[in-house]
Amino acid sequence: MTSTATITPTSTTELEEFLTAAQEAAAPWAALRPAERAAVLDAVASALDAAGETLIPIAMHETNLPQARLTGELKRTTFQLRLFGEVLRDGAYLDARIDHADAQWPMGAPRPDLRRVLEPLGPVLVFAASNFPFAFSVAGGDTASAWAAGNPVILKAHSGHPELSIATAAVIAEALAAAGIQAGVFALIMGTEAGATALKDSRIKAGGFTGSIPGGRALFDMANARPEPIPFYGELGSNNPVFVTAAAAADRGATIAAEFVASFTMGAGQFCTKPGTIFVPRGSEIVEALRDSELPAAAPLLNSRIQSGYLEVLEALQGHDKVRVLAQGSDPLADPPSPTLLLTSAEDVLAHPESLQTECFGPTALVVEYTDEAELIALAKSFEGQLTATLIGTETCEVESLIDVLARKAGRVLWNQWPTGVSVTYAQQHGGPYPATTSVGSTSVGTAAISRFLRPVAYQGFPQGLLPEALQDTNPLNVPQMINGKR
Amino acid sequence: MTSTATITPTSTTELEEFLTAAQEAAAPWAALRPAERAAVLDAVASALDAAGETLIPIAMHETNLPQARLTGELKRTTFQLRLFGEVLRDGAYLDARIDHADAQWPMGAPRPDLRRVLEPLGPVLVFAASNFPFAFSVAGGDTASAWAAGNPVILKAHSGHPELSIATAAVIAEALAAAGIQAGVFALIMGTEAGATALKDSRIKAGGFTGSIPGGRALFDMANARPEPIPFYGELGSNNPVFVTAAAAADRGATIAAEFVASFTMGAGQFCTKPGTIFVPRGSEIVEALRDSELPAAAPLLNSRIQSGYLEVLEALQGHDKVRVLAQGSDPLADPPSPTLLLTSAEDVLAHPESLQTECFGPTALVVEYTDEAELIALAKSFEGQLTATLIGTETCEVESLIDVLARKAGRVLWNQWPTGVSVTYAQQHGGPYPATTSVGSTSVGTAAISRFLRPVAYQGFPQGLLPEALQDTNPLNVPQMINGKR
Repeated sequence: MTSTATITPTSTTELEEFLTAAQEAAAPWAALRPAERAAVLDAVASALDAAGETLIPIAMHETNLPQARLTGELKRTTFQLRLFGEVLRDGAYLDARIDHADAQWPMGAPRPDLRRVLEPLGPVLVFAASNFPFAFSVAGGDTASAWAAGNPVILKAHSGHPELSIATAAVIAEALAAAGIQAGVFALIMGTEAGATALKDSRIKAGGFTGSIPGGRALFDMANARPEPIPFYGELGSNNPVFVTAAAAADRGATIAAEFVASFTMGAGQFCTKPGTIFVPRGSEIVEALRDSELPAAAPLLNSRIQSGYLEVLEALQGHDKVRVLAQGSDPLADPPSPTLLLTSAEDVLAHPESLQTECFGPTALVVEYTDEAELIALAKSFEGQLTATLIGTETCEVESLIDVLARKAGRVLWNQWPTGVSVTYAQQHGGPYPATTSVGSTSVGTAAISRFLRPVAYQGFPQGLLPEALQDTNPLNVPQMINGKR
Repeated sequence: MTSTATITPTSTTELEEFLTAAQEAAAPWAALRPAERAAVLDAVASALDAAGETLIPIAMHETNLPQARLTGELKRTTFQLRLFGEVLRDGAYLDARIDHADAQWPMGAPRPDLRRVLEPLGPVLVFAASNFPFAFSVAGGDTASAWAAGNPVILKAHSGHPELSIATAAVIAEALAAAGIQAGVFALIMGTEAGATALKDSRIKAGGFTGSIPGGRALFDMANARPEPIPFYGELGSNNPVFVTAAAAADRGATIAAEFVASFTMGAGQFCTKPGTIFVPRGSEIVEALRDSELPAAAPLLNSRIQSGYLEVLEALQGHDKVRVLAQGSDPLADPPSPTLLLTSAEDVLAHPESLQTECFGPTALVVEYTDEAELIALAKSFEGQLTATLIGTETCEVESLIDVLARKAGRVLWNQWPTGVSVTYAQQHGGPYPATTSVGSTSVGTAAISRFLRPVAYQGFPQGLLPEALQDTNPLNVPQMINGKR
């Protein structure tokens, strides 16, 4: 059922037109008041909601994902656009700061009148992901946050759902036109070469990406090698380890096992936050429960590239001499594959981090038995940067030191919950140290994602009438202003 | 009078000890409450103030800079440390966000309890600058902001003032010890090789730099080429163009000329915000006034490398067939060099941006005559990224479009003031698009500089007692918290 559409790569001529249009659209789009841009985001959200009956069948056809999941994902996507509208109306994202002139400033020299605000970077190039054809694709989080910040977006479609990408882009184009916004604020491009050419073009001022470690790293390197390097926000891979304390395992082993199975097989294991490893006490009933658990039925993966990549990693893991199969459906290596649980020991994970801590994108996870809870610290330290790390414990456990380590390794740390859902909220953090992302200080989900596409500008000694509205004394936009260091 | 000290490069063994100590100091330093770290910053500031009588003579001996300038710079440096203490006590820098669990969250799925705070990155490597031996060196802005954020600092000393660097580091070490802080929070290293080795070491989690474009770019490339790339905040070069409108030139040409001379010759032209170019209307009295102006006497440059680099750029500029000498002291190419003003036309600057928009680090500036004020837009657009751009105008001028362009090109835009002073304040922005900096979204001066050395971590579903204090409901640190999107 995956796409059989022939992708027509964007030609050099078309790309040139899109880049020129994006550059020309940058200043007028940036000049809109935040609430005006919010209204445009709302209009795009409404248009996408209204087009659900057209878009969802195309998505089902191209991605193997079920209707309920896609319906929920489209809702998440339009909610996300509207939430960024709320961020714009609030105005705190501008980080407006006003220092009045101060002849007595204790630095030793008079302080001039200085006012600082965040402004858009310019055209942003977004590389869509395959696994969320709405929420991390054409009108997904990177597009929403780059737009909200005031930047035109050029979207490089993922080859896994080209028809859906084209259909989504058409809805966007129509909504923008109806709102009177110039077309250059959005363009869809197709093909690896067009993506790379655009990334190297001086008119592009930032990049966003969700995908694999090798793919993301190659683009990150390309962005940094430009004569003018640009920020590149890549969300790459993650193992998302889960650490179960002895007390929790003793307390509710069967429940933990059932919840873990639900989490690692969700979406056929194709979430970047899928828990790929679970550490459990040796001899815990969790291992028994997992061995006896009824794993979900085989489900098709997103596309043939993901299927073959999954099999390659699974075969290597399963063939590792320190790894045994703990539980497996009838056709673990077929297409579609049934889920797999593998078993190894803590010592082996420490001894072979490169082979046993790899991300396996699909319905496989590694169960790791440890002997002594004190080992968990060393195990946590042995991981590279992660999107998430999960601690399953009880409040009587002494876990403060482990939490400290997990917080240094991962962007999101969970307590007795599972990492697979990534809620779009004010406090969400979806990002972590490399290789989870290429930009440790940022998030690609949640309202803070807007900061990625902004840069500060200070105005010194300006008359009121020539200042951006957010920095004027009368505060016509009614945004939060920090004045002389006070809020 | 420049330094004749023999620099002993840091050995591999010593560097290894420093890196280990920094890594070991990271967790305890990060675990201090913000107000506790603020007290340490205050203690270091007081120790440096108290050591002024020792440090300033060493600085005078090594840098050719006069006592008054160095006295002011030390005051600025200790003020800066204390200002970051104020930032810590305020707590807004933590960007604490709390989302309560919400079963009705309109995304379509229940929202978990999510709480997000900024945490330190880990050991930071800072490369000191030559031109501000206190404020951008051992205890300068990068060190202060990285420390404040909760990171140990390894400081690569600048070869221009090694004795001062050692003496400053000794004051810091003593103050840290007296405050009961472990020594790994700070280390001084010497030599290009030790700096490069440290930058590539996996224990280093971020870099800071102030210096030349080629030097900064080389280190930026090195930081990005690591297996785990790290953020690298380089403040490189800038031409800092000044645009004078026809009305302003007619109104107060002589004053503008005098102020410009004071600005471009300040510190013998060795400020990264020195105005290197001034655009004036053809035939304006500014040109006459500059031709007739009494330029300051020759003053020694910081060191022989800067002297030879300056002569190289000046000779190329002066030998350019589109450039004439407008005014010059008696010994423009001597050591010390007397200041130089060169003259060219707007058309030539547009035709030869590479040769005529170069930074010339020293007491030289280029005066550019334009015919029509409308040309200023194209001239502004022709520049690469800048730290500053200055507009000298009157309120009757139509300058909105020019300001828009300048705000896209520079991190700080000035109106009828001069860029050479960089006040340490809440709203300061010292940074801009490449090549002004390698990180367009950041500043190296002002309180926002702390954000460079922090990363977000979200805690999902945590019991109160296991949360960082800044995220607890009782808010024991009394920091600003955004709760459910509201402040």
